[in-house]
Amino acid sequence: MFAFKYFTPTKVVFGRDTEKQVADLIREFGGTKVLIHYGGGSVVRSGLLKRVTDALDAAGIAYVTLGGAVPNPRLSLVYEGIELCKREGVDFLLGVGGGSAVDSAKAIGYGVYNGGDVWDFYDYKRKAEGCLPLGVIMTIAATGSEMSDSSVITKEDGLIKRGYSSDFGRPKFAIMNPELTMTLPDYQTACGCTDILMHTMERYFTNGGNMEITDAIAEGLMRTVMANAEILVKDPKDYDARAEVMWAGSLSHNGLTGCGNDGGDWMTHKLEHELGALYDVAHGAGLAAIWGSWARYVYKNCLPRFKRFAVNVMGVEPAGSDEDIALKGIEALEAFFRRIHMPTNLRELGVNATDEDLVTMAHKCAVGVGGAKGSARLLNEADMLAIFRASV
Amino acid sequence: MFAFKYFTPTKVVFGRDTEKQVADLIREFGGTKVLIHYGGGSVVRSGLLKRVTDALDAAGIAYVTLGGAVPNPRLSLVYEGIELCKREGVDFLLGVGGGSAVDSAKAIGYGVYNGGDVWDFYDYKRKAEGCLPLGVIMTIAATGSEMSDSSVITKEDGLIKRGYSSDFGRPKFAIMNPELTMTLPDYQTACGCTDILMHTMERYFTNGGNMEITDAIAEGLMRTVMANAEILVKDPKDYDARAEVMWAGSLSHNGLTGCGNDGGDWMTHKLEHELGALYDVAHGAGLAAIWGSWARYVYKNCLPRFKRFAVNVMGVEPAGSDEDIALKGIEALEAFFRRIHMPTNLRELGVNATDEDLVTMAHKCAVGVGGAKGSARLLNEADMLAIFRASV
Repeated sequence: MFAFKYFTPTKVVFGRDTEKQVADLIREFGGTKVLIHYGGGSVVRSGLLKRVTDALDAAGIAYVTLGGAVPNPRLSLVYEGIELCKREGVDFLLGVGGGSAVDSAKAIGYGVYNGGDVWDFYDYKRKAEGCLPLGVIMTIAATGSEMSDSSVITKEDGLIKRGYSSDFGRPKFAIMNPELTMTLPDYQTACGCTDILMHTMERYFTNGGNMEITDAIAEGLMRTVMANAEILVKDPKDYDARAEVMWAGSLSHNGLTGCGNDGGDWMTHKLEHELGALYDVAHGAGLAAIWGSWARYVYKNCLPRFKRFAVNVMGVEPAGSDEDIALKGIEALEAFFRRIHMPTNLRELGVNATDEDLVTMAHKCAVGVGGAKGSARLLNEADMLAIFRASV
Repeated sequence: MFAFKYFTPTKVVFGRDTEKQVADLIREFGGTKVLIHYGGGSVVRSGLLKRVTDALDAAGIAYVTLGGAVPNPRLSLVYEGIELCKREGVDFLLGVGGGSAVDSAKAIGYGVYNGGDVWDFYDYKRKAEGCLPLGVIMTIAATGSEMSDSSVITKEDGLIKRGYSSDFGRPKFAIMNPELTMTLPDYQTACGCTDILMHTMERYFTNGGNMEITDAIAEGLMRTVMANAEILVKDPKDYDARAEVMWAGSLSHNGLTGCGNDGGDWMTHKLEHELGALYDVAHGAGLAAIWGSWARYVYKNCLPRFKRFAVNVMGVEPAGSDEDIALKGIEALEAFFRRIHMPTNLRELGVNATDEDLVTMAHKCAVGVGGAKGSARLLNEADMLAIFRASV
């Protein structure tokens, strides 16, 4: 067991119609001039953006808007947002949408508060000393960015996708109405469930230390996400299932499921970041496509955890050798991915990667993590390439 | 499933030697003149108080001290603390000890910030509009006060024990070093485990709504607390078991295990408050002594939850009628209480209550809750008396 810090200051307001509280919440946290930052047209088409601006108008809170945050959100839009905030004297950010809008808003917040080139943070050159306060209205359950300290931005020049984590970036409030997630395409819903699951799995497959209470919470969360992901395949309008997945998304990535461990493995995420940067695939689908190859490559180095996962999460009978049980757990999770129509390799992901692409991605990944990384198994560039090749 | 708010802003610093960070944390949250509020002599005898004052001296942070917070902390000491803070210009509170010191510090914080008679809050006459910022160093795992919004104070005049809850009272930081809990007498350790368990059970035994993810987390937490409470009976110095129980104590009462429910039942706590006020018993022991009688009185009105508890938490075989299964779960928890040397009735608690005492306690309890309360089963004064009588 390792020492840990736990800091989740975000005020969560969860349930139907909670977006009506947006003006009160902005005021509670001192916002007087707001940048509403959102993604594509769905927030406009659904009428949510208008309801938000109407609420701010009624409350007399000034705002400007900036749409266009895309999946794998781009650095150029972040720069644009920073300039807009400075020009307009914005003192509060409101991200409306999914993880992309929120991650992009976090980056804008770092840029405005700290000055200089915001990419420095994502390039590990500086640490943020603060962030413009940020609130969010979530319309996608996936990244957990609404309570997390992390954001991921893609730099167009060189297609470099990097994450930066700082407690300063944790949102002040998160408005979470499960109904707002109901219009999401089924594929995106499944991608979100996969991402949520993976945020806890990255913390779960570790060596060197764990807490029983953290494991118990993590296992309960993973079982809940999978059960409700399957419900949503059949009935995307099931409010309770939407709510279970949405709350799991926040808890999965706010730190709770990692308390007492060594920080987590995170290599599936790092490998996926290269897929996302190069092929612009949906993050959750990319994770599903790479996970099985990662798991088969590393499970012998982390056998007690893979065995426990198989039994406690996937319901595998604890009979046979530890390796057999572990492999059955991996197979069971891949079968789950197929049931929610997620890919389990690059081909199913729709990516026809050349071997040269795989070499490039492995190299960029190794550079991005500073050579080698991983807790379940420490992976260097050759290992990364082997996993990419196994995933084709 | 109900809508909910979730707000746990406390920065937790968990692990060995974390008390060394106290000066940095006070400074981080703006404290310049501190009231160190603690309980009995154990904090002095263990040297912890000296280490804290040495750390503040070294950091150049001014402070005054006030000891004497007792279990079932007293209003008179709260008044004394408020006057001391005003006289000395204190702008930050540091509670050192268990829930009593922290609850007492919260009350002092409400009194200093809001003015007027602080008992008004506990007497449901006013709501606090703020609280002096508060940090804590925990030496007992029990009340969860280090992350919770609640505090419980006893007014000597009439022996009235009341709780007040407000987000303003949530500590800014909580320093949690499991080693500091190792010198606690075994009886107090078991009392703490019981209190922790009960904080989640109060939220678990409800009618009308629940979330699967909350249940899964709650069940994992309860199993973890029980398993580690039994380890501590045999080996009170087991660091990992101390850590599991300590972290469970925070999570049990910070709101996490109630997300999506109707607010919880809380009648075992309300009934125990009368025991605590009249006989000054240890809170956890009082809860254990009353719970079985409460459970047998209400379980038919909340059968699905009692059945689920029996199977998922107590490991009862799901065979036979639902009532049989539920009763076996109640019996199993009482057996657990006996294994950790907790009482299961008033006699074992060491309380020889006259029937007049029971009538008085039931009446005070009914007045305290405004007539009737309870989610598993709504209890009025006659019900409360019946439970007290069954618990003798």
